[in-house]
Amino acid sequence: MDLAYNLWPINRSILGEGNRNTFELIQKYVGKEFDFLKINSGTKVFDWTIPDEWNVTDAFIIDPNGKRILDFKKNNLHLVGYSIPVDSEMSLEELSGHLHSLPDQPNVIPYVTNYYGKSWGFCISHNEKLNLVNGKYRVKVDSSFKPGQLEIAEYFIQGSSKKEIFLSTYICHPSMANNELSGPLVCASIAKKLFENSKSNTLKYSVRIAFMPETIGSIAYINSNLEKMKENIICGYVVTCVGDQRAWSFLPSRMANTFADRKALSLLKTQYPEFKTYTWLDRGSDERQYCSPGIDLPFASVMRSKYATYPEYHTSSDKFGDVVTEEGMQESIDFYLTLLGEIQKCSFPKAIYLCEPNMGKRGLYPLNSIKNAYQNSKTLMNILSFCDGKTEESEISRLTGLSHEQVTLNIKILYENKLIYFEK
Amino acid sequence: MDLAYNLWPINRSILGEGNRNTFELIQKYVGKEFDFLKINSGTKVFDWTIPDEWNVTDAFIIDPNGKRILDFKKNNLHLVGYSIPVDSEMSLEELSGHLHSLPDQPNVIPYVTNYYGKSWGFCISHNEKLNLVNGKYRVKVDSSFKPGQLEIAEYFIQGSSKKEIFLSTYICHPSMANNELSGPLVCASIAKKLFENSKSNTLKYSVRIAFMPETIGSIAYINSNLEKMKENIICGYVVTCVGDQRAWSFLPSRMANTFADRKALSLLKTQYPEFKTYTWLDRGSDERQYCSPGIDLPFASVMRSKYATYPEYHTSSDKFGDVVTEEGMQESIDFYLTLLGEIQKCSFPKAIYLCEPNMGKRGLYPLNSIKNAYQNSKTLMNILSFCDGKTEESEISRLTGLSHEQVTLNIKILYENKLIYFEK
Amino acid sequence: MDLAYNLWPINRSILGEGNRNTFELIQKYVGKEFDFLKINSGTKVFDWTIPDEWNVTDAFIIDPNGKRILDFKKNNLHLVGYSIPVDSEMSLEELSGHLHSLPDQPNVIPYVTNYYGKSWGFCISHNEKLNLVNGKYRVKVDSSFKPGQLEIAEYFIQGSSKKEIFLSTYICHPSMANNELSGPLVCASIAKKLFENSKSNTLKYSVRIAFMPETIGSIAYINSNLEKMKENIICGYVVTCVGDQRAWSFLPSRMANTFADRKALSLLKTQYPEFKTYTWLDRGSDERQYCSPGIDLPFASVMRSKYATYPEYHTSSDKFGDVVTEEGMQESIDFYLTLLGEIQKCSFPKAIYLCEPNMGKRGLYPLNSIKNAYQNSKTLMNILSFCDGKTEESEISRLTGLSHEQVTLNIKILYENKLIYFEK
Repeated sequence: MDLAYNLWPINRSILGEGNRNTFELIQKYVGKEFDFLKINSGTKVFDWTIPDEWNVTDAFIIDPNGKRILDFKKNNLHLVGYSIPVDSEMSLEELSGHLHSLPDQPNVIPYVTNYYGKSWGFCISHNEKLNLVNGKYRVKVDSSFKPGQLEIAEYFIQGSSKKEIFLSTYICHPSMANNELSGPLVCASIAKKLFENSKSNTLKYSVRIAFMPETIGSIAYINSNLEKMKENIICGYVVTCVGDQRAWSFLPSRMANTFADRKALSLLKTQYPEFKTYTWLDRGSDERQYCSPGIDLPFASVMRSKYATYPEYHTSSDKFGDVVTEEGMQESIDFYLTLLGEIQKCSFPKAIYLCEPNMGKRGLYPLNSIKNAYQNSKTLMNILSFCDGKTEESEISRLTGLSHEQVTLNIKILYENKLIYFEK
Repeated sequence: MDLAYNLWPINRSILGEGNRNTFELIQKYVGKEFDFLKINSGTKVFDWTIPDEWNVTDAFIIDPNGKRILDFKKNNLHLVGYSIPVDSEMSLEELSGHLHSLPDQPNVIPYVTNYYGKSWGFCISHNEKLNLVNGKYRVKVDSSFKPGQLEIAEYFIQGSSKKEIFLSTYICHPSMANNELSGPLVCASIAKKLFENSKSNTLKYSVRIAFMPETIGSIAYINSNLEKMKENIICGYVVTCVGDQRAWSFLPSRMANTFADRKALSLLKTQYPEFKTYTWLDRGSDERQYCSPGIDLPFASVMRSKYATYPEYHTSSDKFGDVVTEEGMQESIDFYLTLLGEIQKCSFPKAIYLCEPNMGKRGLYPLNSIKNAYQNSKTLMNILSFCDGKTEESEISRLTGLSHEQVTLNIKILYENKLIYFEK
Repeated sequence: MDLAYNLWPINRSILGEGNRNTFELIQKYVGKEFDFLKINSGTKVFDWTIPDEWNVTDAFIIDPNGKRILDFKKNNLHLVGYSIPVDSEMSLEELSGHLHSLPDQPNVIPYVTNYYGKSWGFCISHNEKLNLVNGKYRVKVDSSFKPGQLEIAEYFIQGSSKKEIFLSTYICHPSMANNELSGPLVCASIAKKLFENSKSNTLKYSVRIAFMPETIGSIAYINSNLEKMKENIICGYVVTCVGDQRAWSFLPSRMANTFADRKALSLLKTQYPEFKTYTWLDRGSDERQYCSPGIDLPFASVMRSKYATYPEYHTSSDKFGDVVTEEGMQESIDFYLTLLGEIQKCSFPKAIYLCEPNMGKRGLYPLNSIKNAYQNSKTLMNILSFCDGKTEESEISRLTGLSHEQVTLNIKILYENKLIYFEK
């Protein structure tokens, strides 16, 4: 929660100082330096161009009574993201065209961005807007644009395999809690835990945890890494909206048939059987890129209350305490750690030798071949007979009728005896 | 019907003057010159050899009473197709071996051909045959064979795509109506209509309408064009027996699972839910070639009363008025034009960009990102997410739960905005 | 049965004099020389190394009373296979560590081998073991090891096709009847029969019958022949435990979906509908190699009482008369000959010509094309339309709704008329 409160006031966006400060605080918390992917403003990434960096020194309006209102320093949601600089006087009528409010939720400030529109705007609660008096308003937006770099920060926890599990979260949202500080907070905590564990215990699959601005970030990341991603990622999850305690939610991949889907669903069914299932049509975060046609990576998403489904979503009322709880985030951390653990237990073993290997010379088969002596080695041989590099352990379990525990134990024996391998 | 009556008396066969005259009349009716594929007699096409051209000046028999009977000039069905020249006297007994009649249908002249047998014969109603008296008969067949060309005439109505819809019909049958002047007549009318429409309105998919002799014609055509056909044809139909009003019939492709099958079945179910379904085992026209192993083109057939199922089939009683009606042909024209229209509405859109494109810069996404602003663009993005070049619109409709209208509208928007393409 | 009694006393193992003597007797019985695959001791085959050859001159124990017991010359099961030479005196306690018995079956001598353990041992009935008195025992094993060759003997009955049916049996078991003299005996008899028949009647598919030591033999064979096996074998069976009359048993291939599975099951269902079905998990013979991942050959096994399921299995009580009967073996011979016959009837015909061939010029189609003339040729054309080289006759039968007899007859006509071929 300390990290949460420190990150809260920072003005994050897709590029800018706020993002760097955010990365700084996360690094301090995790105790590990990030690897950065930095892409210059102006660079083409698929259909997109990386925009300039946006920084804000101050932004406010002075009302006709001389009162400073909609003060960015009090709440960065007041300023529309990527607003251009303004220093001007205008009537209420003119100003109104630049004010955003939610008539249905009159007490909250909405969250608005306009990254590519070269305009400016302020966000205001609808009630406050209705109370604005006629007269001259001074509008001041002390923002600046300059060529910079889109920055994606990632942790890579090296496992024994090049194959990796990918967690993707986004850091472009300013002061909101569930959507979205919960994702980076949960991911930071997962990273810290995995690094700690990795001192005593090497993972099987590497884990990559990437913090990036939403959409343009994942597009830029894929643009730089598609081939490697296709080769190495066995499953991935978009970690977002993981802070409240009101629901568990599942959003599948495009065809809803990947290893990522299967593993997440299997754990949700066990731990939170009341979870809500959404469809690909309800998607809204970076799975839009990871699963798009031609990319087709195995990404799903496990959330608490899904974005766009809870009233506080994208408003100033999406806050710690009211919406996001420490316990809610802790449950999400626990869920994802358990899920990673379950995936770590999975493998796609492949026999090293054509034909059955000589088990006797490895002490895995009774040297004296006498009737009934094979019962123990039989399980091992049954499992080995399905190690074709395409069949995951839970499928081997289904095919052999053996429990997961038995399969896992025997796969370990086969691996230690250099009889199977896992594609690197 | 004028064209029908003009075509009626012509002695069509697989090669010969009658075919050229037929093409001539069709060209005049449609008002467009054909493209011709001409293949010399003697040329090998797969397992076949193009035979010589066959022409007939006259053919008749003089009975013992001096009466001219079985006069080719009165009904070209009297002469077996590809009969060799004869000028000879013979007994009734000897003649009988050359006479073909149908005991079960004693009043009709059967239609008989013997393209590759180098023999001669006459066709006669069974009753007339029974009445023949003993005595000397003079037989005269003034036919000739000479090296010529198998001629296939085609219209190509250029669409914006190289992908094409193929209509195949055959012009080798002499004076019969349902099987077969109805196919060429219906196809001529469709061609005329499409050319007229194409002046104001370019098609999406090109349409090719080919008039050829049955069997040897489609074999020769495939022999010359297989590669292009495999690349370009999205669906094809054999247009035959489309003149009577007694039934609607569907004959599927070999595996009954192509886009041609789906679209034809879908329209039949809507328009003529009482249609009869045949199977591949009931086939009998050029789908035998188009769907054969190794060719495997997506061809089906929509007919009225299917060949070999109605009593007048392949006899002199298959006539206009009695069997084929103007209304029947018009309904078939309408059906095929509607089917072409439905297929024209289909597409296999493919996203141009990997990852989602930047919709905002195209005005397809609200620049101001505020809660609930995306409803309109969401449909667009859902559809785009299935544009993988393999999924046809009706399948996208099924996957997104959107109506065909919505899918079509949005596909258009995506296309106009250069976000998807259709493989050329 | 003469061959059975002659083979009975021979000390067979994985390499050695006993195997050569066994091959000699089988050759004499069949009246044909084997082809041999010989692989030198020390050669690596996949994960294994061919061991030295093992021969035994004598082996026995002299008990404290001077009585010769556990005499190898009386029953070769007394000596553990591949026992090293011993000439030593020892106490009963020390000796006991080298004695193998079955407490649950106290009257039988178990069958024990230790090919790769470089140790020695004797097998004894449990009752005899309990009666051994204290005192000095003289142990004599006059065995020798020397570099030799693993020998695999095969008969190849040439068919008109390079495609082959493979029967695999093993000759490494000493004096036991169902498991395992029954397999080599049944295979020898099948070979003799096929050679006799082949004088008057060439097979369609070649038949290969291989006699080899179990496990190391099939591994060595695959190591030498994998590419050819993958190319040519259309189905294979491991012939083992085919001598008793108490059951019929089926053991499938790894994925239980090959042509070998289908044909064996189809015949068992007809002839012995009460047969027991085992699963891949119950396997225990050379299908372990033939079906292993990456090898994936189409092998199944039809047995009588399956190994490891009947009480006499791998003991001195697995004898002719008590367990294996002449009638039992004869039934197995008949079953496999019938199965081979059924497979010989199968084919995967492939059309020679693209498009339909010209049937008329081959006399397979009425030259005079008159209504209703095609009924006979229609069946032929329907069958031909599915001759894509991937569809076996019984599948063509299913697709056309024609009886097996009709399909077989017409396939023959198509073949004789050079319209289809069978991949060589």
